[in-house]
This record gives sequence, C-alpha cells and structure tokens, in this order.
Amino acid sequence: MRLQLCTWPEIETYLARSTGIIVPIGSTEQHGPNGLIGTDAICPEVVAAEVGERIGALVAPTLSIGMAQHHLAFPGSLALRPTTLIAVIRDVVQSLAVHGFRHVYFFNGHGGNVATAHAAFAEIHSDASFAGGEGGLRLKLANWYMGGRVQRLSRELFADSEGSHATPSEISLTWHAHPDRARPMTMTPRLAPQAEFGDARDYRQKFPDGRIGSDPSLASIEAGTRLFEASVVDTIEDYQAFLAQG
Amino acid sequence: MRLQLCTWPEIETYLARSTGIIVPIGSTEQHGPNGLIGTDAICPEVVAAEVGERIGALVAPTLSIGMAQHHLAFPGSLALRPTTLIAVIRDVVQSLAVHGFRHVYFFNGHGGNVATAHAAFAEIHSDASFAGGEGGLRLKLANWYMGGRVQRLSRELFADSEGSHATPSEISLTWHAHPDRARPMTMTPRLAPQAEFGDARDYRQKFPDGRIGSDPSLASIEAGTRLFEASVVDTIEDYQAFLAQG
Amino acid sequence: MRLQLCTWPEIETYLARSTGIIVPIGSTEQHGPNGLIGTDAICPEVVAAEVGERIGALVAPTLSIGMAQHHLAFPGSLALRPTTLIAVIRDVVQSLAVHGFRHVYFFNGHGGNVATAHAAFAEIHSDASFAGGEGGLRLKLANWYMGGRVQRLSRELFADSEGSHATPSEISLTWHAHPDRARPMTMTPRLAPQAEFGDARDYRQKFPDGRIGSDPSLASIEAGTRLFEASVVDTIEDYQAFLAQG
Amino acid sequence: MRLQLCTWPEIETYLARSTGIIVPIGSTEQHGPNGLIGTDAICPEVVAAEVGERIGALVAPTLSIGMAQHHLAFPGSLALRPTTLIAVIRDVVQSLAVHGFRHVYFFNGHGGNVATAHAAFAEIHSDASFAGGEGGLRLKLANWYMGGRVQRLSRELFADSEGSHATPSEISLTWHAHPDRARPMTMTPRLAPQAEFGDARDYRQKFPDGRIGSDPSLASIEAGTRLFEASVVDTIEDYQAFLAQG
Amino acid sequence: MRLQLCTWPEIETYLARSTGIIVPIGSTEQHGPNGLIGTDAICPEVVAAEVGERIGALVAPTLSIGMAQHHLAFPGSLALRPTTLIAVIRDVVQSLAVHGFRHVYFFNGHGGNVATAHAAFAEIHSDASFAGGEGGLRLKLANWYMGGRVQRLSRELFADSEGSHATPSEISLTWHAHPDRARPMTMTPRLAPQAEFGDARDYRQKFPDGRIGSDPSLASIEAGTRLFEASVVDTIEDYQAFLAQG
Amino acid sequence: MRLQLCTWPEIETYLARSTGIIVPIGSTEQHGPNGLIGTDAICPEVVAAEVGERIGALVAPTLSIGMAQHHLAFPGSLALRPTTLIAVIRDVVQSLAVHGFRHVYFFNGHGGNVATAHAAFAEIHSDASFAGGEGGLRLKLANWYMGGRVQRLSRELFADSEGSHATPSEISLTWHAHPDRARPMTMTPRLAPQAEFGDARDYRQKFPDGRIGSDPSLASIEAGTRLFEASVVDTIEDYQAFLAQG
Repeated sequence: MRLQLCTWPEIETYLARSTGIIVPIGSTEQHGPNGLIGTDAICPEVVAAEVGERIGALVAPTLSIGMAQHHLAFPGSLALRPTTLIAVIRDVVQSLAVHGFRHVYFFNGHGGNVATAHAAFAEIHSDASFAGGEGGLRLKLANWYMGGRVQRLSRELFADSEGSHATPSEISLTWHAHPDRARPMTMTPRLAPQAEFGDARDYRQKFPDGRIGSDPSLASIEAGTRLFEASVVDTIEDYQAFLAQG
Repeated sequence: MRLQLCTWPEIETYLARSTGIIVPIGSTEQHGPNGLIGTDAICPEVVAAEVGERIGALVAPTLSIGMAQHHLAFPGSLALRPTTLIAVIRDVVQSLAVHGFRHVYFFNGHGGNVATAHAAFAEIHSDASFAGGEGGLRLKLANWYMGGRVQRLSRELFADSEGSHATPSEISLTWHAHPDRARPMTMTPRLAPQAEFGDARDYRQKFPDGRIGSDPSLASIEAGTRLFEASVVDTIEDYQAFLAQG
Repeated sequence: MRLQLCTWPEIETYLARSTGIIVPIGSTEQHGPNGLIGTDAICPEVVAAEVGERIGALVAPTLSIGMAQHHLAFPGSLALRPTTLIAVIRDVVQSLAVHGFRHVYFFNGHGGNVATAHAAFAEIHSDASFAGGEGGLRLKLANWYMGGRVQRLSRELFADSEGSHATPSEISLTWHAHPDRARPMTMTPRLAPQAEFGDARDYRQKFPDGRIGSDPSLASIEAGTRLFEASVVDTIEDYQAFLAQG
Repeated sequence: MRLQLCTWPEIETYLARSTGIIVPIGSTEQHGPNGLIGTDAICPEVVAAEVGERIGALVAPTLSIGMAQHHLAFPGSLALRPTTLIAVIRDVVQSLAVHGFRHVYFFNGHGGNVATAHAAFAEIHSDASFAGGEGGLRLKLANWYMGGRVQRLSRELFADSEGSHATPSEISLTWHAHPDRARPMTMTPRLAPQAEFGDARDYRQKFPDGRIGSDPSLASIEAGTRLFEASVVDTIEDYQAFLAQG
Repeated sequence: MRLQLCTWPEIETYLARSTGIIVPIGSTEQHGPNGLIGTDAICPEVVAAEVGERIGALVAPTLSIGMAQHHLAFPGSLALRPTTLIAVIRDVVQSLAVHGFRHVYFFNGHGGNVATAHAAFAEIHSDASFAGGEGGLRLKLANWYMGGRVQRLSRELFADSEGSHATPSEISLTWHAHPDRARPMTMTPRLAPQAEFGDARDYRQKFPDGRIGSDPSLASIEAGTRLFEASVVDTIEDYQAFLAQG
Repeated sequence: MRLQLCTWPEIETYLARSTGIIVPIGSTEQHGPNGLIGTDAICPEVVAAEVGERIGALVAPTLSIGMAQHHLAFPGSLALRPTTLIAVIRDVVQSLAVHGFRHVYFFNGHGGNVATAHAAFAEIHSDASFAGGEGGLRLKLANWYMGGRVQRLSRELFADSEGSHATPSEISLTWHAHPDRARPMTMTPRLAPQAEFGDARDYRQKFPDGRIGSDPSLASIEAGTRLFEASVVDTIEDYQAFLAQG
C-alpha cells in the first residue's frame, strides 16, 4: 500500500489494524561513473514497495534527498544539511503521530543518513523526555544493505569488491529496477581507494570518480534481482519484529 | 531526463548546454473521499517527467511533502512546517548552485506551498543581498493548475464544479497517471463548501470530507489525459520562457 | 484606539467587547527618486489609525521593517530575512493570544511581505495542527492597495502609470500624511521598466532608480487624500467582515 | 532626519558625511494603572527625533516591540522572545552595514531589552570573529533613563518614588509627548513593591497593578518637558562621543 | 556535593531536602600574557566546589565554554555564539526542572556571559509566559568577582590596577587553585589600556596582549587564597538568600 | 597539556608544532545504582589528560553534558537536545579553526553522543561543501571503550556482564579516578535487561535501576587501573594515526 495512492478514508481503516508505516529514505548523489544518482533512493523505494504489497504494510513517499554534503563536488548531487534533515524527519514523524501511527520504520539506502536520522529520533524523543511525559513513539532506521540475507549474498557475489560507495550490490539493485539504465563499464582502477573523508572537496580529491573501495563493473541485473528478493525477505522479517516489540 | 536516473558524468555534460532544472514539488495530504493522498505530488511529477522527455530538460526528484498543516486532521496527511520547507528548498537550491545550475524551476502541485516557497526564495536571495553581492540565481514557482491551457480546459470541463481542493481536474490527472486507482464516486453534498480556514481542526470542521468547493464526481481518466497534455504544453512554453530571461 | 496610547486596564475593558486587533505592517525601503523610504509603513499606519478612530478598533504599533532583501542595494533600505519576520509575526500573535485576542488583522503596505506573512500564519497554525488541537486563531493579511475602492480610484487616477513599486498611489498617500514631504519631480524614463527580479543586485540592475513600472510624477497630495478616504472605507468594511466570520 | 521620511538619494548623500544612525528601541507593555502601554517606545522615539533634528542625525524607525515576556500576564503587552529580538537586531544592523553605516546607536527605553540587545551585538560580532576578519561595526545601546542629566533630574523630582517600572519619569515623558493622554491618578499602595521576578505569572503575583517600586502619581507634563530636554542633551553628547571613537 | 560524583539515588534523596543547585559557568579564553586560558571557568568552579562542601549544596559540572567571540584573535580561545549558549542554558535548566529543581544558581566567572545568560533566562521564562502558565523557576546569575567581600578585598589589594580583564584578582585565584601554574611576570605597559570593543580583531588591536586595564603582575597565590575564602563566604550568603526567596 | 592551564602565548607556540587537539566529550547522566552521574565525562577526561601528559598533546576542557534525553527520568541527568549539541560542537570546532587547528579529535565516553557528533561534523563540513571550497578540517570521534586493548580487557574481565550502560568497565575506570567514590554493591537482578528504547519514560520502564545489560557489581578499582592504562595506550596510538593522515 503506497500512502500516495490511498485515500484518507482508506488510511483511517488501515489505522484500525496497524500503527506501523515504512518510510523509505535515501539520497540523490553521485554513484561513480556508471551508477545512478538516485541509487540510494531507488533501492529502498523499490524494496519497500514490494514489502508493502506482500504484507499489506503502508509505505510513505520516499524522502529522496539526504545528508550528502560530501558528494557536492560531483555534478547532480543534492544535499540537506543535517539540521534540515532533522527538521524534515521530525515533521514527518509528528505528522504521523497526529493520526495515531506509533511505529515508524525508516528504510534507508544511504550510509550518510544514519547518524543524522538517529540524531533526529533523539530530537523527537526529547520533546517527551523534557516534558516528563511518554511520547510512546517507536522509531527505527533499517538499512537495506545491512539485512542478513543481503549481506550474505553481497559477500557471495562480490566479496572484497563490494566496497562502501557505488557498490556492485546497490548498482545491481538499481539495474533490476531500471534495466534500461544498466550501463556495464570497466573501472580504472578496478577497485576504488578507501579512506576517511570530510567535506566535498576532500572527498573528490580522495575518490576522483566517486567510488569508495568498490568495483561496480561486477554489477548485473541478475545480481540485482537476487538482492531485491533477499532484501524484501529481510525487511519483512525485520519490520514485523519491529511491530511485535509493542 | 530524470536526475535520479542519470550518472554524474551525464550531468556534467548536461551543464555544458543548460543551467536549468525542473524541481517538482507537491504535497502528501488528503484529497477528499476518492482523491489520492499523493495527488499534489503526482500531478507535477508526471507532467514534469513528460516535459523532461520532450525537451531534454533535467527533472529533479519530487519534493513530495509540503506545507500542509491544515490537512493534519485527516489520516495520512503529512506536513512540513513552513520553516522546515524553507530550509529544504534552500538546501536544494544551494546544492544545485554548487554545480552551476542558475535557473531552478519549481513545478508545483499544491496551493499551500506557494507562500512558503516564495518566502524560501527570498531567504535564499537574502544571502546575496545582505552580502552586497550578486547571487545570480533565477528561481521560479509555477503551478501546473495555473497554466493557460489547463485553466481554459478546466473551465470548459468542470466550470463551477472545479472548486479549490480535491478538484475534478487534479483528480482526473492522477487517474490518467494511475488508471487502476480511478474511483468514481458520487459526492454529498455535490459541491463542497467554500470558506477561509486556519489550523487543521478548523479546516475539518468546515470541510468534513476534505473537499473545498469542488465536485470530484466529475473526474475522469479522459479528462485527465487532456489536462495532462495541456499542462505539458503549458509548461514547456513557460519553462523555456524562464530560461530565455537570462 | 492606538494600543501604545492605552493603559492595560483599558485593554482589559476592550477585550470584553472585542477580540479583534489591527496590526499595521510595512517596510522601510527605497521608493524611487522622490518616494519616502517609509512609504510602505506610513500608508497602512495612517489608514489603520483612522479606522481605529472611526470604529473603535484597537491598532497595534506598526511593524515597520519587512521582507525587503531585494531593495538592499539602495541606501537606507532595511530588511528582515523571511525566517526573522516569521518569528516576529509568531511572537506578536502568540502575545495577543495570551490576552484573548482571536482575530488578528495584519494591514499591509508592502507586497514583499505577503508570502512571508502567509508562511508565518501557517507556522503559527502548525502548533495547533501538530498538537491535534484547536488554536482558534483567525489571521488575515489585507493589503491597503488591494481594497476595491482604492483599486478603482488608482485606475481612474493613474491608469497604466500605476506600476508596482513606487506607485503614484502610495506616494500620493504618503504626501497626504506628510504634505511637507511632497517632492513633485519628473521621471526619466517616465515609466519605469517591468521585470522579474531576484536578489538586491539583480533588482538594482533592472530598476536603476528603484521604481517598477510606475510614474510617480503623477502623485499629488489631493490624490492621496482621496485614496486615504477610499482605503479607510475599504478597510472598515473588510475588517468588520473579518470579525463577523466568527 | 527620520529615515522613513527621506528618499534613498538623500540617504546616499547623508552617508557621504556620516556613518552613524540612531535606532530607537522600546517595548509595548503594561506600565501600571495609568501608564501608556507604549511608554518604552514613545520615550526613546520622541527624544531621538529631537536629537535628529538638532544635530542632523539620521533616525531609524522605532523597534517598538521588545523583550517583555514578563509582562504578558497584563492585557495588551506584546513580547518578542530573546532569540527573535536577536534576529531582528542582527538583520537591521546587517542591512545598515550593506549601505556603509558603521556606527549604530540603539537608543533604548526598556530595561528588559538590555541583555538581549547585548547578546545580539555579540551574535553580530561573532560573524566577523569566527571568520577571523574585521567587521568594523561599532554597536552601542544607550538607555535614555541612564543619561547623567536625566538621572540627576529624576532624583531631584522623584527621589525614592522613582522605582524601576512605570516610573514617574517615564510616565511624565510620555505625557509631555501626548499631553491629552495624561491621567493623573493616586496609587494604592503609594509605592509599589520591589522584588526579583521570573515569568509573567510570577511577575503579576508580585506586582498586581504592574508597577515596580514606583509612585507614578507624581508624574506631570511639566516634569516630562524637563526630562525631555535633559535627555536630548544627554543623548546628543553621548551619540557624538560614540561617533568620535572612530 | 558534586553532581558528577553522585549516583542518581543520592540525587533523589537530595531533592527531598532541596530544590537548589549551583551551576558554575565560565569561559575558555586568553587571559593576558601570564593568565590561564581557563581562568574564568576555574574561578567559579573551585569556589562552587568549596561552597558545595561546606553547606551540602549540589554543584553541577562547570559550563566551561562561554560567550567569548571577542577573544578569538588570541590562540586557544573558544567561544559559543550567544544563540548557542542560550540553547545550552535552556537545555540544562529544562533538564533540571524535569527532576524538580526549582532554584538554579549560575555562578559565573566571565563578564561576557552576563548578557547572554540573562537572555537565556528570559528565553526559558518565555515558554511559561507565552503559554499563560506558571513555570515556577527561579534563575539567578551571580558573578564571583561581584561579591561584597571580594570587591572590598580586590580594592584593598589591587586598587586601580584591578582593571577588567586578566585582573590580578582572578589570576591570583587561579594560582591559589593551581599553584604550580603561578607565573609572576612584569607587564609592559604596567597597566593595560581601557576601551570599548566589538569583534575579535577590534579587541586585539586595542588590547595587544589581551589584558584590559589591569596589572596582573600584582597577582599572588596569597592574594588568591584570601580571595577564595572571601568568595566562598559571599557565595554561601548569596545562595542561601536566593533559596530563601521561595 | 590542558588548554585551560596554558596561556595564550603557549598555545601560539604549540600551534607551530601541531595542529591537533583532543576534546573530551561525555555526559552527565545516571549510571545505575552505584555508578557516578559523571561517569561518561570522567572516563574520557582522565584518559585524555594522561595522553596529553605523555605525548604533549593539547587537551581542551571536557564537554561534560551530552545527548542524554533518554536518561531524563532519573534524577540528576542532564541533556542537550541534539540540535543544541550540534551547535556546541560547531562553535568549538570553528573557534579552533580560527587559530589554525586542523585536527580535532573528540574523545568520547557516551554512546548517546555518537550519532549527534557525526551529524555535527557533517554540519560543519557542509559550510565548506555548499560553498564549493575546502574547509581542510579533520574531525574524528573516538570512543574510549572501543579501543582495541580496552575491548580485549573488558571481555577478559567481565565477559557477558559488561552490558552497554553502567558497565563494570566504565564504573571501574571512574573508581580508579575517584577511589573514595567506589561503592561496591550487589545488583538485583544481577544482569540488567537489554532492549531497544526511545524516550525517557520508555527507558525507565524498561531499565528500572538505569543499567542496560550490565552487572556493575563486578567493578573494582584494580580493573579500573588496568583499563585506564589500556585506554591511554589505545588513544595515543589512535590519535597519532589521526594526525598522521594529514
């Protein structure tokens, strides 16, 4: 169930049976020479949509722009400052809370969002904590690429060529979703470098084509299809466990 | 060209020929008994995508959540506070400016966004103005439902039954985009009331089923298809005029 | 009744009979070669004061500095960033609400304030809407130059020479208020240009003497006196209708 | 010279001879049983206007609403939160700096503004200090009631009945400015209590009629006229010394 | 009692007998050629610790970084913007209020904090005042160097050589606390200049070695020991009076 | 070298040989029945001080109050909202950057700070990234309890009784630092529960005495001394590697 494709009376009905919702969250940023700029939004979006279909979970529209300041030296990358993203997540959660949603499951495609999303959760909980009351909200961030099945499959498929940005796994998954956009390409060097980084210029100096530690020449639609299925199963399991916590 | 489906080298190439981009902006909010909650995001998204195809314009991911505090008494509505939306628009524009985009065309589906978007533009321009410098940015908000062809067609099709929220025009357009979601339905009363409103409870008291002044029972896929085409042509014309201003 | 010239027991008495107040809001910014920098504050201030006298309405002190970043390339212009003006309007309205005022009528003299003021109203309403409660506040922005009588009279007096900044109408009204400041002057070119604009430098490049589309050489004290009377009558009518909405 | 009554070319001319400006700042808040709500704005406004006339100093429009949260339990009081007032002062100073003003003299009528105004000055200076640069701005807050001549005259006229809020001095000065608003009245008790206070309810519990330590029954138009003259002379001296500091 | 060295059950017990707490607040900034950068934090910290021991008062950890933008041109100085410090003080007070503390006594070592701390108190009180409720919080800022005994002793010891920054009194007190850090040194010129200042570069131009009006060559451990005792007694008296206000 | 105990000329000298600084960051929050409220600040503070001594590294004053909203239902806990802590970290780093520090090593004692600190780093880097420039700052957060030697020793000493809050390791370390505060105590139940948590009331309901998964009855001064030494060595190694990255 996609929230955008429901009417409000349908949501009223849904709330009588569930207080949970999945909110895909990603980023719009460079993903190396042949990766799609929307990779980190597309991955959680397509998996969440399928999860929603299979188990009747409601899925919010994707928060497509994330905390990606370090990618701004590559054309096309968009970024929200952390304090902006905190405000966005706060407003979305508080909107949902007005309606009676209590379990908000952010399904994430971008490592750069993790810290800020957790800071946002704490900012939201602070309202109740400083008021001495009980907010009653359950907030979780789950990364599609961290699911157990996905991690095992990535290791099996790509081993040490997975890297951490513009990975063959995520690029495969986007090609599964948009096969017409599959652009197999050799990489030079085959494996991108690994390093710590700070701001955008520092990032680009260290990772000239945008990749970190990965070899996306290994990506394929077939791998993407297997990763998609693995992630859907991981996520159904994890989301249902989240709801079951009460 | 959808930004999310491009690679960064493709955007680098694009920037050599154009400094313009279309950013669809909408809302996720109730649209009456049979309107989709995503109506205001879907409408500009589908029109912008087609505009992008026809003229090779770059289209950013849709900002799907807007200034919709007045709809929060209806389940499923999401809202950003105005100050949050201002921060989002500022960060998006400043991201684009890093890359050399100078013409940012926000293509809007939600009346509630208009004031806040203009406040955001002024907030962005303030940086240059207070610094005594030249920001050089051209920012425009265009509403799909205000295009000349669209307005003439809406009047022809729906006359005084158009109203101003959950209109037969916008609902028709979403049915054009998602024909499986078309849910023809009679309305009681046929025409919804009209009034000024303030916060969410006030809104719901005045508009119990969410509509303002409209009769969406008149909506149809056929009307949506005609409105779609009208809006695409309106928007190509308006966007090209915007770029031509220099 | 000017709030500044009352005592608090007088306001306590007033609140027993009315929950309405008029808050003039303007700007302090260049108004062309012979227009007063305070034009946009003076116009609503003098009209509101007279309205207050005639019908016993309470009038707050004028918010004299507005959203005017685009005028900052002309000496003497002052501006509040939109987010600052939002905070000011929010604090003023929340102050009034503490005392039991429910109808706050912002009477405006500056087009640049319109979007930001509406964003501010939405920010204020958001508090109630996100809390799931009823704020009960009625907020309106009315522009003196948009009243029916004023518009008809401006058209009659100045036709296509009215323009949209440093208009003969507003300049006439300030001369009615400050006849010793009347400075008739010919303009070169007679009619100023019209265009879209962004930040302050862009504005000054397009409108070198500050006017937009107007010929203030037509301004006169006599016209100002007629416009003053027209605006007072327009405003009494509009304010009373606002209160009558409940 | 009132900024609001000048044209921008006149300000351009002024800046060639002076980089100084006087910005009256006050408050709109209860002033006891017979004091005007606008007392703290009116006092600096009328003195500043006269100073401007006598020495050709430019005077900005009065910032009429101040940091007055503690008065909100009395009808008619308006307040800006400290963070809002900081933003206002910052924007005003930065606007002036764009034009080349370097000496901004805030002429204040309200004790409650003092801490926040100084915090605002530090916020403004922080921009230059954190950037490692030289802002070159000179900012001062001067309180009309702290001038040497004013203090001596207040002591001579009212001795221990002056108190610290709704003082006979400030009320006399407003009656000098608005003689038709003079409302002599006996006070019960004659002298209001003195105490520390926190929020608005605490304030009203401790000072039931709004006064602190004062006996405004001693106020008179005659005293106001003498105080006005004393303050004008104090202020000319202090403002000129401020400019002379370089 | 140092809060950091207690367990939460001990604080629960403490709250049954007292709602008061002492929060030392200082700064980390240059203190002239031989003064410690931590002077303004060390002074209130050591005095507060002793006060806590003698009368069983709870002492929070020191807020060691203050409003010190004007010192940023000297290596090692740290500063919080005023709006940041306001947020810190607000969060600390609101944390304490959750537990039932009602009397929060900020014990300060830095003149630059005074205005901002008072603005912070007003920001905190604003929450209750705008809500029309009673916050019930008592907030006080006391400066160790303003105590009666301390002022008399400083005058006796250092007379006109005390100055206002890097004073022999504060430097003596830090040497009492850290005798191994005592670094007697002659000063050139003996007395530092006095002046108004704005941002950091302005400060350094006027006070090349960091001192204002002081001769810290007079500092001694012995003087520090006497000042320490004087401040402890001043503070016990003042804090108990604060609690006794109710 | 403790920054607070240096003079500014000493820091000027230090900067000629190093651009690095260690900033201890912790929290002031409940640590179970017998753990000190200052545990998370004391641990990094004492280790950092020793590291500073051994290798001549500069150590800033400890940021003692952290992101601890979830502990607010236990008396004595203090918390900064995430957005406040972001502002604090930003101001501290920007202060250091003014002086030429380029490597800022936050040495942390509190898991709750991690996400917010990383969000703060991204907020700081955003300034350079959105400006299209190179900030050149290297920012790192290192947790004392995550060092290799510390982790091995904790496992050896406490195995599965370590848990994740009020751990025997951290309590041992505070007892090493403050042996007079060692309060051995049996725990009921011996091992505290483990769970996900949200706001403060939720936390207290799940962890009634404040511990998470730990048995601090195993804590000892002796263990603390060993952990201290392990952490000092871990940290010297990690800090030097951080500086060596360039």
